[in-house]
Amino acid sequence: MTSEQAALTSGADFWHTASTPPITLTDGPHGVRLAGTPGDPLTGRPATCFPPAVTTGSTWDPDLLRRLGEALGDEARSMGVAVLLGPGVNLKRSPLCGRNFEYFSEDPLLTGVLATAWVRGLQSRGVGASVKHFAVNSQETDRMTVSADVDERTLRELYLTAFQRVVREARPWTVMCSYNQVNGVYASQNHFLLTDVLRGEWGFDGVVVSDWGAVVDRVAAVAAGLDLAMPGPDDTGDRALVEAVAGGRLAPEALATAADRVLTLVRRAAARQAGEYDRDAHHALAREIAARGTVLLKNERAVLPLPADTSVAVLGEYARTPRYQGGGSSAITPTRLDVPLTRIATATSAPVRFAPGYGPPGPDGTPAEPDPALIVEAVAAARESDVALVFVGTPEETEGRDRTCLDLPAAHVDLIRQVAAANPRTVVVMCNGGVVRTTPWDAEPAAVLECWLPGQAAGSALADVLFGQVDPSGRLAETIPLRLADHPSYLDLPGTDGHLRYGEGIHVGYRGFDAREQEVAYPFGFGLSYTTFEYGTATATADDTGIRVRVEVTNTGDRDGREVVQAYVSRPGSRVRRAPRELKAFANVPIAAGATAEVVLDVARDDLGHWDVALGRWLVEGGPWHVSIGASSRDLRTTVVVDVPGDEVHVPLTAGSSLADWFADPRGARLLGAALAGPPGSPAVDPALLAIAAAMPLDRLARLLPGGPLDPAAVAALVAAANS
Amino acid sequence: MTSEQAALTSGADFWHTASTPPITLTDGPHGVRLAGTPGDPLTGRPATCFPPAVTTGSTWDPDLLRRLGEALGDEARSMGVAVLLGPGVNLKRSPLCGRNFEYFSEDPLLTGVLATAWVRGLQSRGVGASVKHFAVNSQETDRMTVSADVDERTLRELYLTAFQRVVREARPWTVMCSYNQVNGVYASQNHFLLTDVLRGEWGFDGVVVSDWGAVVDRVAAVAAGLDLAMPGPDDTGDRALVEAVAGGRLAPEALATAADRVLTLVRRAAARQAGEYDRDAHHALAREIAARGTVLLKNERAVLPLPADTSVAVLGEYARTPRYQGGGSSAITPTRLDVPLTRIATATSAPVRFAPGYGPPGPDGTPAEPDPALIVEAVAAARESDVALVFVGTPEETEGRDRTCLDLPAAHVDLIRQVAAANPRTVVVMCNGGVVRTTPWDAEPAAVLECWLPGQAAGSALADVLFGQVDPSGRLAETIPLRLADHPSYLDLPGTDGHLRYGEGIHVGYRGFDAREQEVAYPFGFGLSYTTFEYGTATATADDTGIRVRVEVTNTGDRDGREVVQAYVSRPGSRVRRAPRELKAFANVPIAAGATAEVVLDVARDDLGHWDVALGRWLVEGGPWHVSIGASSRDLRTTVVVDVPGDEVHVPLTAGSSLADWFADPRGARLLGAALAGPPGSPAVDPALLAIAAAMPLDRLARLLPGGPLDPAAVAALVAAANS
Repeated sequence: MTSEQAALTSGADFWHTASTPPITLTDGPHGVRLAGTPGDPLTGRPATCFPPAVTTGSTWDPDLLRRLGEALGDEARSMGVAVLLGPGVNLKRSPLCGRNFEYFSEDPLLTGVLATAWVRGLQSRGVGASVKHFAVNSQETDRMTVSADVDERTLRELYLTAFQRVVREARPWTVMCSYNQVNGVYASQNHFLLTDVLRGEWGFDGVVVSDWGAVVDRVAAVAAGLDLAMPGPDDTGDRALVEAVAGGRLAPEALATAADRVLTLVRRAAARQAGEYDRDAHHALAREIAARGTVLLKNERAVLPLPADTSVAVLGEYARTPRYQGGGSSAITPTRLDVPLTRIATATSAPVRFAPGYGPPGPDGTPAEPDPALIVEAVAAARESDVALVFVGTPEETEGRDRTCLDLPAAHVDLIRQVAAANPRTVVVMCNGGVVRTTPWDAEPAAVLECWLPGQAAGSALADVLFGQVDPSGRLAETIPLRLADHPSYLDLPGTDGHLRYGEGIHVGYRGFDAREQEVAYPFGFGLSYTTFEYGTATATADDTGIRVRVEVTNTGDRDGREVVQAYVSRPGSRVRRAPRELKAFANVPIAAGATAEVVLDVARDDLGHWDVALGRWLVEGGPWHVSIGASSRDLRTTVVVDVPGDEVHVPLTAGSSLADWFADPRGARLLGAALAGPPGSPAVDPALLAIAAAMPLDRLARLLPGGPLDPAAVAALVAAANS
Repeated sequence: MTSEQAALTSGADFWHTASTPPITLTDGPHGVRLAGTPGDPLTGRPATCFPPAVTTGSTWDPDLLRRLGEALGDEARSMGVAVLLGPGVNLKRSPLCGRNFEYFSEDPLLTGVLATAWVRGLQSRGVGASVKHFAVNSQETDRMTVSADVDERTLRELYLTAFQRVVREARPWTVMCSYNQVNGVYASQNHFLLTDVLRGEWGFDGVVVSDWGAVVDRVAAVAAGLDLAMPGPDDTGDRALVEAVAGGRLAPEALATAADRVLTLVRRAAARQAGEYDRDAHHALAREIAARGTVLLKNERAVLPLPADTSVAVLGEYARTPRYQGGGSSAITPTRLDVPLTRIATATSAPVRFAPGYGPPGPDGTPAEPDPALIVEAVAAARESDVALVFVGTPEETEGRDRTCLDLPAAHVDLIRQVAAANPRTVVVMCNGGVVRTTPWDAEPAAVLECWLPGQAAGSALADVLFGQVDPSGRLAETIPLRLADHPSYLDLPGTDGHLRYGEGIHVGYRGFDAREQEVAYPFGFGLSYTTFEYGTATATADDTGIRVRVEVTNTGDRDGREVVQAYVSRPGSRVRRAPRELKAFANVPIAAGATAEVVLDVARDDLGHWDVALGRWLVEGGPWHVSIGASSRDLRTTVVVDVPGDEVHVPLTAGSSLADWFADPRGARLLGAALAGPPGSPAVDPALLAIAAAMPLDRLARLLPGGPLDPAAVAALVAAANS
């Protein structure tokens, strides 16, 4: 019995459980990578390569994410997959993280809301999600061993927040633990994370599965709350579990519970219906998402959208060899691939001239050096065309390897500069999974489009945006800094001696840039549209459930468009250190040209809480909260102040409370003041001493003044009186 | 016996031990504050008020600090004082710390070298020092209870470094523990700090005394290594110790050792000779130090020094009511006070016009509001004079209270602006204990002198500098930032819920500004002179003891002067994250006009070590070290590269070593490569899998590939072969 239980808690092979029947777990998150050819556990069968999370995150559209989840669910069940390994909800702490393209945002609310929609969509098809990588897996360097050293408030308010939302709101079937350690304990055997927080506080009722190879010690893992160690087989580990139970080193209930959870998962999966999916429809969805995730960073003289009779110079190797996904476990064998060059040639009736501009990266991903001959050829094409499109981007980004700088390859920058000098209607088209530095060159072209990694419909989606079939409503889900050295995370990267400090604490991403009042290239939440929007004056009400804000937004241009209306909260005068602004609600609203929409934004009360370290709980601070509504974190159009009732917390005055605490409490001040004055004629306490002793606990002041007005009995009497 | 021991480990009263005979401990650190009038434990008898550490730190002159220590020793023994409570060697982590004026620098080497000289000087007179506040006491807010949460590398390389140097090199009689907690344990009962590090690693053989009122639990304190709890009496605590020994909760040896150490201290003190001191000579020394600690920040058109026949408008209340020391336990009743207005009037033969310019601060330290009438009067005086001196500064700074901003009072800034507009030869004279922001106004006056807190010879010292009797050779011991929000410490201040994060880690002060390549107002190490210096090309040699650098420095002006020659080291390509530059040696060199000095700077090998977290020890990394020599941290004139042999560390390859580690080792790479290739005909490991698995430990890779080329026996064989 015990040995059967043990066997159930590791995989049968790379992708299957050891249950009867086995179920299949398969990599995601932006496509179904059903792999498992003998001898090749990694290459997947063809499936729709949707845009990765960097792009879907930029849509700021939970409805689109729900539809993506549904489509992935349909593909998964068509291939007999029970659990799709995604979404990835780690916070983009560092712009260098090689896996940022698989994550949504530097903001936990945006990440959590989008991931929740994705999981709901997927699981509506009877396919389970695996929310990953739990937790604090924000870089690839040393990811198998490094300890993320992070204080609890930061952990709670930033790195666990998206997981918490998804678990509570979407009830994912599984959560995947990460490879790294958190504060010195491997995530795979971290009882605090896997049991106390995930199940105890959040009510998770599914399976905790390990990342592939993340388990160090099977016994410690099961004891901590891990249910399924993947991959398998792991006969050694199974035996170790049996022996641990026999030897009294592991509670038999712990193993039985893990095995039961695996069986529950298998039963859940058994309810799945078979079915096929429509490849064309999914490709169309991939195209829609890619277009909607494109962020228009710059558009001078309205050079975009292009009329359908524009002659275009299409420049840059990436126009014909597109960068459309990242490397590693998420790499999908696409069902087809829309090449930008081809799609642009189809979209315009005028001539299209192509020049590669730079060579392809080398086999190890090294970018090609600038090639003057290629640039000359590209400049000539630019001169002959109405508009020049310059395709640039990062070399391959992949799981397992962090980037080392934010710059585009020198050959790409040279191409931008020379082409922009030759044609004033130059549009830069960027494809990259992590942010790149734009300031060295972005003053020169007329327009800049950030396409991120657009998936297999790259070319058609881009043509839709370029020629105006789709209004670019993508907004930045992460800050583009002026320099890497400005980034809040910068001083700690990439860690030393197996430890990665989280020194900026709660000041992740825009929270840090805002706190230090730093300039950035493009702020969090930013993105242009082909039309313009005006905001009315916001109004707000607060009740037990949170804050409801209403604001009218008018499309003041002559094209239909979408606005992403963002609500940031502040609590001026807070008793805890806070970021100046935190995103707490947003709405993605289509508004016809000339029309006005009334937008309602709900800030949930729970999202206003901060983690009180002293009390070890969430706490909503009462008082005036400011809610600022706008088009980005630094383009706030209207602010409303609303009074929120705080959580009641009574902190009693004790002998250990400081003089300042005593004097801050009306009754305490009266009592202590009288005690310090002493009986008539007794020596008063020196006011200078009191001034420098404000932080001193009462009992230590008493010890400092032996023979003074405070003896232990007097202190006890004061405490009793203060709390009576 | 036990009760006698217990009694010895607390004070007899506020300032005396309970020994026979008792000895007297008295506040310092920049004067002997012998207090103890009945009913007034704080006001001291008159003593020389030397400049506080903010000023002495700016001298960068250990010889001057030694002479200061000797003078303090002479005053102390003349008053029967056995131990003078100083020096304060806490690092200036935050510019807001209300007690920064009692600390030397944001750099641990500069702090340690100056404090060592001070202690040697003091103790040469038979008076003991008390190096304080041990440790990580970098702010006043909540100082009695707050936990300084700091990682060990930062603790070792920054916050403990100055203590380590002083303890090892000057053997202070006592060390004073701080009020705060360090990583959740009160300093007064912190065994790691008081015993493991201080005595075990550094060889401290003196008494650990508590800051006054810092002991929370006498038993825990003695167990941790605290010897003397002050003040006393503390009969309750003495009884608790006796009961803890009787009850087996405290080792009798621990209490006996503490009592013995107190008795040893009393015997040391008994050897002290009585003696008088020369008040005039000490005042002259205070004057010399204050002048030498003055930092000339700006001097356009050589407006300074002033000819002796300059007519001067002396503007600002602080010219007649000088800011010359801070508040709290270090406040001295001076033997006399040189008022700047008076001394300037004596120094020039031309008319002196005084106007207060602004009102004095209120009784609670609130600065006076700008008063247009006072400013008009000051501007009129400025118009009639050759030169206008504008005295500005902070309101009172004091122990127990942090500052909340870096700005000068608005009334002072207004005065500077209006006077500078009226007289192009305006000189701003600043008096402040912590740095103030200068950028709002420092483009406007012709010259700026930072006098810090100059002590009782304030006026005469200033006159010496203004009229050129002394070349201002003071250099900044802390960075003056452009804005508070730029400061490395900014995001954490002032802590939340009893915890103060040390998020910037090792990047304290200029280390952080340099790492982020931030602009600053005036960099660490900066200071002008009345003459100019040129640097030759440095040469360097390295041996077992460290690096010796030689450089020729020439006084290229026509006045004698002093240069502070600074050596900063870097280790490009280091395997650990480091600050770009770290001060590791300096020399304070008088050079006559036109003369050249050969300056020799020794960088001790120990000072090149970093704290290796994984190994838990100091480690000198071998390879090319860059030593840059210059006049400030951002005015580096010559760099020399020297190869330093590293400490031998053999880290064996294990089953837990990552693939990257294996492939980084030549033999490991050969062995593992062969193993992964497998026998002829066996399936090769997927190169894509290897690429993303570089961080994976070998044993976990083996588990990831069951049936592959690595089984547990193969891993064991590889490990054996790699280390054979």
